[in-house]
Amino acid sequence: MGVEERRQQLIGVALDLFSRRSPDEVSIDEIASAAGISRPLVYHYFPGKLSLYEAALKRASEDLAGRFAEPQEGPLGARLLRVMRRYFDFVEGHGPGFSALMRGGPAVGSSTTNALIDSVRQSAYEQILSHLGVSEAPARMELLVRSWISLAESTALIWLDGRRIPRAELELQLVHDFAALAAVSAAYDTEMAALLNRMVKDEPADGPFAELVGRLMSLAP
Amino acid sequence: MGVEERRQQLIGVALDLFSRRSPDEVSIDEIASAAGISRPLVYHYFPGKLSLYEAALKRASEDLAGRFAEPQEGPLGARLLRVMRRYFDFVEGHGPGFSALMRGGPAVGSSTTNALIDSVRQSAYEQILSHLGVSEAPARMELLVRSWISLAESTALIWLDGRRIPRAELELQLVHDFAALAAVSAAYDTEMAALLNRMVKDEPADGPFAELVGRLMSLAP
Repeated sequence: MGVEERRQQLIGVALDLFSRRSPDEVSIDEIASAAGISRPLVYHYFPGKLSLYEAALKRASEDLAGRFAEPQEGPLGARLLRVMRRYFDFVEGHGPGFSALMRGGPAVGSSTTNALIDSVRQSAYEQILSHLGVSEAPARMELLVRSWISLAESTALIWLDGRRIPRAELELQLVHDFAALAAVSAAYDTEMAALLNRMVKDEPADGPFAELVGRLMSLAP
Repeated sequence: MGVEERRQQLIGVALDLFSRRSPDEVSIDEIASAAGISRPLVYHYFPGKLSLYEAALKRASEDLAGRFAEPQEGPLGARLLRVMRRYFDFVEGHGPGFSALMRGGPAVGSSTTNALIDSVRQSAYEQILSHLGVSEAPARMELLVRSWISLAESTALIWLDGRRIPRAELELQLVHDFAALAAVSAAYDTEMAALLNRMVKDEPADGPFAELVGRLMSLAP
């Protein structure tokens, strides 16, 4: 194998192990053994476990950011729901590693890992703005989108901890949560109200937004 | 000064400095100088900056957790709004240190600091459940309360970054966000619907929940 090919293979093996257990618990010996090479050879390619972890996390970050890409066609609610499905696929495929990373901790919290997490959040933020047709977000829209992204993270983390609610329900719930938080924001601000009107005007009668409005209306006294 | 008195004084001085700037930027020399003692004497009480930082964070955590305590009297919306005001008082008083801590980073991410953050989140969680009259939370209620707590954290962090929205509006918005997310959850689950009905039945017509419902109704087509 060439140097780059071997590096890529090691990153893949390491990502698999770091995904399935907390990175703290994964040793270089284990990675070497899973890759079928010696421990010194691992160190030939990566100076230590942290640099291998960071390389694996970089690959995972690119994978996740790629899943946010969605054609700008059709109703917004259905687009967001498809992204949520791919997001939960990712979360399910990397459960223990995702939990350990997002909950923070000495082994996983470096400035590089934090920068990678922020870059994924930024990708999600920019994708959502582009679907909303906004290039420069006013303060309330930035707050809505960024705080909803953190809601999606915490929802995924809570789901991983026991999986007490079916993930398909949470994927849909997060779409509804976005609409509900947008509605609160719209209640404060005419610009946000205009955005919400634009969001819902092309929603089909059987789409997630219309479903939410119907459900909310039925709860009102 | 006695040993414990001196320790408490140092913790107070350090907390003040760690609150006003990112903890990375605060040196032991500065803490010694602000406390009016020598650098070696600081080390006599605390083995290093991390232990002093952790002691300061412990005091801040207890302060914050104490602000969640609210008499179980009167409408729920007004209670939550009072807690949000005290929460933003805390966030405003410890801005740069709060941001640095919650955004993570090498200097502030230790297992002790993470445990302190989790203990504050747990206090908030238990306080909210007790106000809702729930001792054992079903899965959807746990998700609602915990994910709303993370929404309150991210809202405060985004506010600190530029303060583009008046904090009084965000305090009220977070109360509305809670009601809106509860309404989404209620749309999925009869137990949550019963909770929401209990939440709103004692709300006054001029309280935050009623205001939100009115605003949402006016947005509906």
